[in-house]
Amino acid sequence: MPFTTPAQLPGRLIFPGITGRFVHLERLTCGEVELAAGAIVQPHQHPHEQVTYLLAGRLQFTVGPETQVLEPGMCAVIPSGTTHSGLALTACRVLDLFSPARDDFRSAANS
Amino acid sequence: MPFTTPAQLPGRLIFPGITGRFVHLERLTCGEVELAAGAIVQPHQHPHEQVTYLLAGRLQFTVGPETQVLEPGMCAVIPSGTTHSGLALTACRVLDLFSPARDDFRSAANS
Repeated sequence: MPFTTPAQLPGRLIFPGITGRFVHLERLTCGEVELAAGAIVQPHQHPHEQVTYLLAGRLQFTVGPETQVLEPGMCAVIPSGTTHSGLALTACRVLDLFSPARDDFRSAANS
Repeated sequence: MPFTTPAQLPGRLIFPGITGRFVHLERLTCGEVELAAGAIVQPHQHPHEQVTYLLAGRLQFTVGPETQVLEPGMCAVIPSGTTHSGLALTACRVLDLFSPARDDFRSAANS
């Protein structure tokens, strides 16, 4: 079925207070992610390229050495292997886009 | 610079009444696309996998043999080489995500 509503899919707990709902193609993953106010994206990196697009809220985000407060309509562009982290200044909703696909997120949801 | 606001980037006319503003990584393209009410996405296909996520408006969208009216928060999931088309029932704003990257959209904007 080529149509879906990500927010209605089962969730996967990514970090405490951060739940993602993911759609996968072979090479591309699109996730709608909710962050509770105060939730922390711990510094991490992965080989997948990532774009984080802010749908709602205010998200302090760090990519490599640079930090910015994202407002809706802004995005962070994260090359492969680049450390990134974040702090939800309010409740937030983001789209997280990855290539290659996040095969580690294909398994059954966990929340 | 790892942060950007796609809506503020120069636009590229995709089809009449449809303008996209694109961010590229090596393997991933994220575009914020505005469609005027009544604008038509002509049937087309490409090797890139695509997810179209509706931010605002109502978009009638067809993927292969299936048609659905998308509301905000819904997405279309388009495998490589699959014909897709659309009709903006109202003014719409979508995110179009591609992998591999749309190298054909990296050149200077045209609108």
